[in-house]
Amino acid sequence: MLYEKIIDKFNDIKNIEYSLSLLNWDQSIYMPKTGIDSRANTMATLTKIGHSLLISDDFYNLLCEITQNDEINKLDDIQQKEVLKIKEDVEKERKIPISLATELSKITSLAMAVWEDAKNNNDDSEFLPILQKVFDLKKEYAKCIGYKDNPYDALLNCYDKGLEYSYVKPIFENLEKNLLIILDKIKNSTVKIKENFLQKDFDIKKQWDFGISILKEIGLDANSFRQDSSAHPFTTRIGIDDVRITTRITADNFKSGFFSTIHEGGHCFYELNACKIFNYSPHGIIESLSLHESQSRFYENIIARSLNFWQSYYPQLKENFNSQLQDISLETFYNSINKVELTPIRVESDEVTYNLHIILRSQIENSIINNEIDVFDIEEFWNEKTKKILGFHPSKKNEGYLQDIHWSCGLFGYFPTYALGNLISAQFYYKMLDDIGISQKIDQSYFNKIYQWFNKNLYSKGSIYPSKDVVQMITNEELNSDYFIKYLDDKFSKIYNF
Amino acid sequence: MLYEKIIDKFNDIKNIEYSLSLLNWDQSIYMPKTGIDSRANTMATLTKIGHSLLISDDFYNLLCEITQNDEINKLDDIQQKEVLKIKEDVEKERKIPISLATELSKITSLAMAVWEDAKNNNDDSEFLPILQKVFDLKKEYAKCIGYKDNPYDALLNCYDKGLEYSYVKPIFENLEKNLLIILDKIKNSTVKIKENFLQKDFDIKKQWDFGISILKEIGLDANSFRQDSSAHPFTTRIGIDDVRITTRITADNFKSGFFSTIHEGGHCFYELNACKIFNYSPHGIIESLSLHESQSRFYENIIARSLNFWQSYYPQLKENFNSQLQDISLETFYNSINKVELTPIRVESDEVTYNLHIILRSQIENSIINNEIDVFDIEEFWNEKTKKILGFHPSKKNEGYLQDIHWSCGLFGYFPTYALGNLISAQFYYKMLDDIGISQKIDQSYFNKIYQWFNKNLYSKGSIYPSKDVVQMITNEELNSDYFIKYLDDKFSKIYNF
Repeated sequence: MLYEKIIDKFNDIKNIEYSLSLLNWDQSIYMPKTGIDSRANTMATLTKIGHSLLISDDFYNLLCEITQNDEINKLDDIQQKEVLKIKEDVEKERKIPISLATELSKITSLAMAVWEDAKNNNDDSEFLPILQKVFDLKKEYAKCIGYKDNPYDALLNCYDKGLEYSYVKPIFENLEKNLLIILDKIKNSTVKIKENFLQKDFDIKKQWDFGISILKEIGLDANSFRQDSSAHPFTTRIGIDDVRITTRITADNFKSGFFSTIHEGGHCFYELNACKIFNYSPHGIIESLSLHESQSRFYENIIARSLNFWQSYYPQLKENFNSQLQDISLETFYNSINKVELTPIRVESDEVTYNLHIILRSQIENSIINNEIDVFDIEEFWNEKTKKILGFHPSKKNEGYLQDIHWSCGLFGYFPTYALGNLISAQFYYKMLDDIGISQKIDQSYFNKIYQWFNKNLYSKGSIYPSKDVVQMITNEELNSDYFIKYLDDKFSKIYNF
Repeated sequence: MLYEKIIDKFNDIKNIEYSLSLLNWDQSIYMPKTGIDSRANTMATLTKIGHSLLISDDFYNLLCEITQNDEINKLDDIQQKEVLKIKEDVEKERKIPISLATELSKITSLAMAVWEDAKNNNDDSEFLPILQKVFDLKKEYAKCIGYKDNPYDALLNCYDKGLEYSYVKPIFENLEKNLLIILDKIKNSTVKIKENFLQKDFDIKKQWDFGISILKEIGLDANSFRQDSSAHPFTTRIGIDDVRITTRITADNFKSGFFSTIHEGGHCFYELNACKIFNYSPHGIIESLSLHESQSRFYENIIARSLNFWQSYYPQLKENFNSQLQDISLETFYNSINKVELTPIRVESDEVTYNLHIILRSQIENSIINNEIDVFDIEEFWNEKTKKILGFHPSKKNEGYLQDIHWSCGLFGYFPTYALGNLISAQFYYKMLDDIGISQKIDQSYFNKIYQWFNKNLYSKGSIYPSKDVVQMITNEELNSDYFIKYLDDKFSKIYNF
């Protein structure tokens, strides 16, 4: 009875979150321009109500009651974990004073606007002081939540429960060392890859339909998701069995549009399937962004940037874009979508350099949170490290540390999950190959095998366990960067002939 | 201070309503199929929270406090009316026991599903008992709210505050008598109107764009609304300066698609403009469905079915649909969109017969609520009256009393506002002509005059006054059917040559 009461209240809280997701989705895609002020007002009301339900004494007392008496032992193992998980979340939120939460929300929404101007005008004079303020508030936030050794861990935990920087750091160091070795070989390669044929007159409707057709091949149920266009692609759950993705397709950049569709499709597939198993349970809501990213990256990179995938689907693509691709061989096409470019921009980077961008950001975040470097010294740190990796300084601030929105939103601890997701995707991949074998042609029947494998090994775990435990359980190994490096080495040695 | 607290709380309640509107809008247009159960769950949570905020002692005490002490006299006239209006709404809601509200919501959602089956299968054996139950619950509802003489008044008041059936009845009787006279003349006319050319191969995209271009001519701000497709066209407010309409356009029915766009556009224009003046005030939310319908009907019928409108826009239409309209003169086209057809289906009927359908429904509602006829005798009553009006019995139940969804939803008292809206539109129209003169060609500059007139006379009143007071204030006359009859007589005597 206590358990049902708890789940009922949790259900209300989730429903407010779903409503907020829809308000946000609509704002990014369909909302008439002049609706913006009213929308902010509506979202503020729902956020306030949801938060007050979450931290209410009423709810917390139920959680304490069930855990303090014998009732919890009458629940099955999954239910017990549910209750403890909810209690942990509630306790965390109850530690944040309303004044701090309000201040953070106020300052970050201001900082986002200031960041946008700073980025557009390539001028950070007004941004730096407010970024300092955001970091300070987040330090206070970390203190409220509490941590063992490193305040940055409290922030990492917001995006991947159970993660500690002391755990991530050596993995990233090893990763960086090996990435630089591969990158060096690529820099020294004489192979020249052309890709300009991907940058002209690709009919948008055809690109859209081709992307959707691939998502269906992967196994996405067309009745459970939809895709729309937005400035920045994202995935959002609006309800059980209702997940939305967005993409951004332009006529002159096939790569960007297609791979963003597949990336978000990977997130969507995970959301739909993990949720399907757990239905209305809190375990159906995937909270580890590392695991989430492992799925988007798996489908985007390991699958959709592989030769075996295009063995199946290049003929279809060619049929759709005959004039652009008629003289382009499968191999030329495959090389072009895997071209390594030394760009200072994270979102335009490739599989080899992407994680280097992430490691840089993670190091800066940890150093600032631990007062080892000053916010006003970010740019210097950033530029030096970029030069070490790419061989040059970013020529402009907005190609340097002003390029990402994350920090203005206070999302410190978020970036590491991008790199961890890449590592996990490769670690899963090699284990999967052991189990289901490789296919020279990746097609619907092989996609079905992949789905079965994830279903058995990953989806079935919902969010019961921390990501590193999930990786250990599935691969019988600690999370590490070896598989990712092996994957890159195998792939790029063939492309760049080293 | 008390006033600000009240408005703050009211703002939260409105924001929950806006969220519900978006959830509903999305469900009708974009929601993936499998999201349906979760969506119902989410909407139930928001409805529950919104309702509990509205009827909370906390809120009610504030409203009592401000009205019982001197504070209210410190407010300006508009603010005083706001507070009293909110208090009245809260008191009304507080009279409904939760058990009754829950039962009503459960039974009506069941009844809607049963009605859909009944309509599809033309079989009412399962529907009648549940419709009986809905009527019984609504009788109880009326009793809880309270009324002077007629329980039906309590229901009418849900859609048009201050309306009494004793006020509506003689207006409808006079209207019916005069409509039957006009209809008789049309039945006896030898004029034959063709319209089959409107039923072939109208490109959907071109129809869509033409409809939107007319809405812009009327004065709708493209930054404040959007149009989507749905099975049943509707208008909904998602926030301040954010109103959405839907339409349903098919290639073989130009009339239906175009006039539904203009109809909803009329609602939208009113919502946007009334709201703009009152911003976040409760007076900005138009609650009189009669006034609302006066606006949709004004633009749909009085304007867009007029010869003077097509004097301006027929050339554009012809340009868009050259092959369909090349041999069709303006006059032939004008007659075709005004053809009177003796259809048993309300939504397919014309300006002359439409209100007769409404009067029938209103009489039945009032009679059942007052226990004068039995739910099981609806069909008999319906068919006899239809025969009197149209000259024949509906051949099937689903062309008779099963055609509308309203009763299954418990919307008793809603239908009369459709007819009142028609009457008001004509009453406004003649007053407007007195003030701004007629135009042989209705174009953007005349639309601007119309907008100015409504802005001064109607929009500026928000929902401060009951609809009949608004009509009196604007036209210096009681609401009556004379203008509507005069309008029909003038128009159709020319078309049907009587």
